[in-house]
Order: sequence, then C-alpha cells, then structure tokens
Amino acid sequence: MPTSVQERIRDLLTTAHEDELRSALEELQPFDLAGLLREREEHEDEQIRLLAAVAPDLAAGALEHLDYQDQYRLLDHLDEQGSRAVLTSMSSDALSDLIGAVHPRRARELLRRLPDEQRAEVQRLLEFPENTAGGRMTVDYLEAQQAWTAAQVLTHFRKVGREVEVANYVYVVDSTGRLAGVASMRDVLLADPQTPVSEIMYTQVVSVRADADQEEAARLLEQYDFVALPVVDAADRIVGVITIDDIVDVIEEEATEDIQIAGGIAPLDESYLDSSLTRLFRKRIGWLLLLFLAASFTTSILRHHAELLDQVVALAFFIPLLIGTGGNSGAQASTLVIRAMALGEVALADFVRVAWKEIRMGLTLGGAMAVATFALARAIGVPLNLGLTVAATIVLVVLVGSVLGAAFPLIGRRLGLDPAVFSAPLITTIVDATGLVIYFQVARLMLGLGR
Amino acid sequence: MPTSVQERIRDLLTTAHEDELRSALEELQPFDLAGLLREREEHEDEQIRLLAAVAPDLAAGALEHLDYQDQYRLLDHLDEQGSRAVLTSMSSDALSDLIGAVHPRRARELLRRLPDEQRAEVQRLLEFPENTAGGRMTVDYLEAQQAWTAAQVLTHFRKVGREVEVANYVYVVDSTGRLAGVASMRDVLLADPQTPVSEIMYTQVVSVRADADQEEAARLLEQYDFVALPVVDAADRIVGVITIDDIVDVIEEEATEDIQIAGGIAPLDESYLDSSLTRLFRKRIGWLLLLFLAASFTTSILRHHAELLDQVVALAFFIPLLIGTGGNSGAQASTLVIRAMALGEVALADFVRVAWKEIRMGLTLGGAMAVATFALARAIGVPLNLGLTVAATIVLVVLVGSVLGAAFPLIGRRLGLDPAVFSAPLITTIVDATGLVIYFQVARLMLGLGR
Repeated sequence: MPTSVQERIRDLLTTAHEDELRSALEELQPFDLAGLLREREEHEDEQIRLLAAVAPDLAAGALEHLDYQDQYRLLDHLDEQGSRAVLTSMSSDALSDLIGAVHPRRARELLRRLPDEQRAEVQRLLEFPENTAGGRMTVDYLEAQQAWTAAQVLTHFRKVGREVEVANYVYVVDSTGRLAGVASMRDVLLADPQTPVSEIMYTQVVSVRADADQEEAARLLEQYDFVALPVVDAADRIVGVITIDDIVDVIEEEATEDIQIAGGIAPLDESYLDSSLTRLFRKRIGWLLLLFLAASFTTSILRHHAELLDQVVALAFFIPLLIGTGGNSGAQASTLVIRAMALGEVALADFVRVAWKEIRMGLTLGGAMAVATFALARAIGVPLNLGLTVAATIVLVVLVGSVLGAAFPLIGRRLGLDPAVFSAPLITTIVDATGLVIYFQVARLMLGLGR
Repeated sequence: MPTSVQERIRDLLTTAHEDELRSALEELQPFDLAGLLREREEHEDEQIRLLAAVAPDLAAGALEHLDYQDQYRLLDHLDEQGSRAVLTSMSSDALSDLIGAVHPRRARELLRRLPDEQRAEVQRLLEFPENTAGGRMTVDYLEAQQAWTAAQVLTHFRKVGREVEVANYVYVVDSTGRLAGVASMRDVLLADPQTPVSEIMYTQVVSVRADADQEEAARLLEQYDFVALPVVDAADRIVGVITIDDIVDVIEEEATEDIQIAGGIAPLDESYLDSSLTRLFRKRIGWLLLLFLAASFTTSILRHHAELLDQVVALAFFIPLLIGTGGNSGAQASTLVIRAMALGEVALADFVRVAWKEIRMGLTLGGAMAVATFALARAIGVPLNLGLTVAATIVLVVLVGSVLGAAFPLIGRRLGLDPAVFSAPLITTIVDATGLVIYFQVARLMLGLGR
C-alpha cells in the first residue's frame, strides 16, 4: 500500500546508505516486505541485505508470507546469528508449518538452532496432523490462573504481552489446567483492578478439540464471530488457540477445493502455475476417465437405436443440443444444492422440499426451453412432427436434469459420500445418457416409428 | 455448543420460573440464543419471552444472526421500551443493514426509536452502497488525538470501551481529522504511561477508501492478516472500520457467487431454500438460453454433414462421448485458471505460460484418452479405421478444450469481462461445436469420404 516507501527502498538498494535503508524498511508491514523480497527473487544478495537490515520480528513476519522453499533458502543464507534471531521471532505455528514442510535433515537443522523451550513447543505442534484444529493452532496465547485478579492479569500481560499472538482474550485455567473460562482483555481492562478474573470470565466456553477437522474450527469461528478459538485436548485442557487469520486461509482453501471438484479436478494443494505437469495430469486424468466411462453408455444407447437414426438422420442433429441443455439444467441444480449443503443451509431432511422445488423448476424451465427449441427446429426447416418431438423431449430432459442434479448430492451424503462428487461434470454425463433414452422413446412415439 | 444449557432452557420455557430462565440465558452466546429463537419459529410468544428475559446486548447480538424479516418482526413485537433498548444495543453496521433491508415505512419507524446521535450515525452509514467498504464498516471504533499519552488513551478507553466494536486498535487522528496512525491496544498497554501515542503508533497505515469494492477490503485484510482495517474518505479522514468477521462473510459470499456462475447460474443473493420459484427461474433461464443459442451451432454443423452421417451412421455413436470429453477437459482448464485468477495467482501477463502448459497437458491427457477411446471402439466392434478416427479426434478435441478453457477467461479479462463468465458451461458448449467440426474433418480424411 505505501508505495512511496517501497519506491524509496528500491532506490536505496542501489546505494550504500545502510542507515537510511534501515529506517525506510522499519515503516513496512511484513506483507509489504514480503512483496519486496518476491520482487528481488533473482537477486539473493539483495534479499539477504533486506532481511538483515530489519528487526527480526519484521523479518520473521515477512518470511511467513513466502512459500516454504523460499523461507528455508533465505534462513539458510542469513548468518548464523541473524537466522537464529529470525527463527526465534517466528510464531510457533508458522515455524512448525515450515519445519513440517522441509526435508527431515533440514528440519533437524532448523530445530537445532531454536532455544530449548521453543523447540519443545514446535515439536509438540508437529504432532498434530496438518488439517486438524491442532495443526492450525498457535501456542502463543495468554493464560491466567483462576485465582488471579484483573490487576494480576494485567501485570502478567505486561510481562509476556510482547510474545503472545492473541492479545484479545485471556484463557483462564483451574488448578488442573482445565479451561475454566475466557475473559476478553477489554473486560479485564474495564473491570475494577481488584475483581477476580473468575467473575469477569465467560464460563460457557466454545472450544474445539485438537483432533477435530480444521473445517469445524472454521465453522465455529464464523458462526460465533470470534477472532480466536481455544483448542482443547480430550481432558478439556487448553493446548492452543486458533486465530481468525488462519481460518480465513482455511475458508479460501475449502472454497478452492469445492470449485475444483465442481470443475472435475481432484483438489490441487498448490497453486496452478506452481503445479508440475505430472501432478496436474494425475489430478485431471482420473475424473476424465471416470466421466468417459459414464459417457460410454451413450455409445451403447446410440448403437442400440442405430436403425432409428438410419431412418431419420435428422434426429442426430439435435443430440448435442438436447443433452447439452439437460446437462446444463442438471449442473445448475447440483451446483445450487451442493453449495447450500456446504454452507449448512440444506440438509438431508430437506430432501422432499428440494425435490418438489426442482420438479416445479424443471417443468417451468423445460417449458420455456421447449418454445425456444421448437422455434429453432422450425427455423432450420425440419418437419413439424420432428420439431414437436424435440420440444417434448427437452421438457422431459430439463425436468430429469433438474431433479437428478438436486437429488444426487443429497443421496450421496446419505450414502456417506462427499456431495461434491455429484457436481456438474458427473451429473451432466448421467443426464446425457438419460436424455438419449428419453429422446428415442419420444421419437418412436411421436414419429410413429416401430422397433 | 453448550447443549446442556440449551436443554435446560427448553425445559424452563415450559415452566414459569422466570428467574431461573433469565440466569440460564445469560450464559448463552448470541449465536446460541439465535439458534433457540430459530427453533421456536412457530411460537412467537416464546421468542419474545426469550428476548425480553435477556440483557439488551445479548438480545441485539442474537438478532444480528437472524434474517432481516425476523429481526424486524421480533423488534416490532417487543414492547416499546424493550425494542428501544435492543435497537440501541445493536452495532451501527448491523442496524444500518437492517434499516436498509426493510420497507421504507418500517425503516422510518425504526429510525424514530433511536436516540438522535445513533440515528445520525446510521443515516450516515446508509449512504454507502451495500457492496462497498463503506457499506460494510462500523463506526463503533476507538479514536485518539495525536497529542495524547498512552495513559490518556487508556482513560478514554475506560470511558467508551463498552461501546466500541473494535477494541484491538486505536485510530489516531490529527487536528484536521486525518488518520495519522494506528496503535495496537497491546502496544498502548505495554508502553510507559507517559509515552505519547504518536510514538507508539504505526504511521504507514494500510486503509481502504469508503467507496472501494468490499472485495478490495477483503483482499487487504487477508493479505496483511489484520483483524480490522480503517476506512477513509477522499480526504483521508477516518470514517469507519471494517472488521474481519464481516470480511469472512464477504469471502464466503464471493466464493458462492463464483461457484454459482461456474454452475451456469446468475448469482443468487439469498439462500437456495428461501428463493422463490420466480427468482430461481430468472437466475437460471438466462444462462440456459445463452448456452442453448451457443449449442444451436451444433445443429447446423450436424445438418451440414448429414450426408456423411447417412453414409456411416456409426459416426453418430461417438458424438456425445467425444464432445463430452472435450467439454470436460475444457471445464477443467477453465476452472483452474478462473480460480487462480480470483486468488490473484494468475494474471494476463501469464498468458503464454498458461497456454504452453495447457498445450502440453492437452496432448498428454488427449493421448491417454485416445487409448481408452480406441479400446472402447474395438470392444463394441466398430471397424478399425473408425476406431482410429475417434481416437485421433479425441486427442485434438481434448487439446482444443484445454487450450480454449484456459485462454478464454484470460482473454475475457483483457476485454474487461468477468473471467467467471467463461466458466465450465460456456466453455463446454463452445468446445462441443468445435469438437464436431474436428470430428467430421478427421472422419473425411481417415475414412476417405469425399464431400
């Protein structure tokens, strides 16, 4: 954002004015320093000069915005003392993510440089799988004893406040380490200094188990509008805190995953441009083959009705149009239902309501599309009865598409499958085959062709 | 979360133990009280009893989780005094959203019940369009004068701290009201009480203009990992603050919008189950007709090659399979590129890199699919040369699908269109028509059929 500062830094990098560079850099946000580091990708010496010029805190914050390879490379090229200072300033969760992502030999090397206490912390965090609440939490939070007064909490805060990542809440524990309550720093500040913290705190604490899925933590933070959520173990002892900024990333990742599955791709865990061809191939070929298999039924259906196609070749003209429209209406219904399920708006119990909605939608949309189809058929000059055939077919195909599109994700959930599997590509393919069967049945009836 | 409390409340609602009910309710989070209110949808008297039993703060917080119709209805049924108390306790942004959403006559009625100062605040907020940073901000933030010391900031906080929605940051203004800096409450607390706040504050403030799109605010909060972002007017005066919990909602909404466009639906601004049939029809028919129009080319292409189909009716067997596979590979490429563009990972400048990636992907995926197609063709017993024709066609169709799928969103952005428009359904339809042309050209060549 403060582009003028960044301009000045770019200029200063070409000079030897180390002091001016240092003071200009101190005004940057970690994210902006990370941007400068990315810009200088080709000039490692300049990257190191930038990192060495700033306070370890700022350097650590900037590194957290880079990918793990770059984090490791830069830490490796800083001198021993600098790298220790930056490592020590990194937040425990960022550090454990980095150490979990690099080669084990490098991980050991990084751990070696940490002070004993921080090393133990990181090793504890490394035990939680990446996609769980425990894997996303930080251990740099503020803890208070139940017997303390507001004044004691503030005294404690003045001592450790620099290090904590979450300064909004104080987590109050009883003598066994169990989470007894949560107090907001605001309430602690506003209370009379002699008030026991146990009178300020909220005791019906919303928390998440360390082994819960990160999505559960995301849902809770979102619903309750919290900025942080305590993470507890099986004995209800607090082991860490998840902060909203990490959850924003989770929400973006989950949306990306859903969008990719809906596009017929197994979820990519990295950015598109960074993915290797081999990786992309593996993520795409599976779905393509599965859909191919499902679509191969269309071949058999068409072969089965070859005689009919031979008699009225004009029937073939409308095949892509009819199955395409059916597929599109199925994709619409499945997209709506899958997203509503992901947001918790639609559940299995709504099956009848959803089905009834889509029956009416399918008939209305199908009716409108029939008018369009009939007009097209007449415009290109096919006989009246063929025009009526395609119009009647499209009503049925859109109806079937809408209902199957809405029903399959719900049925999938009932069977314990991920509803997203029944997204647009699969529904489209299923509706293709169904649509052809409908088309030929209608044609036989309306064109008066026998078997 | 604390389900035992909710159970107890359900029981107490059947009794006349008002005091016990009151004390059980005080332990609830606003979100949980909102859940209870939703459960009692059919029993308005119980809803009112619940709201009247709790502190106005909690009632206001719970209402913010309900939809606008329910908020208005319940406020309308509370007695005059109760409704005034709850309205006054609502946050300024929730209040302006509610007033902006209800009928103008009702809006005037609600505004009338507010104290003068709050009414003026809400009216100021109502001037900002809903999807802008101004439309999402709150005016309940903490402001300090540049000349104050840390101790003065704390004294001020003790006075107004109850009302502010954002207690993490202090926004420091100069004598003209311009935003001079931001200080974190943590730093204010940790500083020596006599330190001027101007020495604690950070001056390179990241802010967003009130008229900026809400997505810009979302991107900034996400990138910088902030929990709140100041909103300024054209003269750089602070007018409000956007908080992360509102941004989480923006991120979810934007993801829903992208997913719906990718499913061939104009974005719905409400939940699927709540949408009327008329509304759903309008959101779906437009895309269906547009895609129908695009697909009608397939009809002309087929008619144009009717003679060929007449000669070799078996050609028709593979039409849905070939164009389906081409469409699927196009959907994969467009999904990947559109999402990467939405996340800022891919830009126009990457066009050549993306195209080259998809050319190689298309050939590899096409090659794999050709093997599958040839095997299928032989298995169902079509002649060898027809099998080779469909195999060759599928390589080309997958190649064209992948490249067009990736290129169109980028070209769209270049032309100033929303890249999401070129998502799966449109790409699939375009690839359908292209695929047919390729199929017939390849067939003529490989089967030795003349015009």
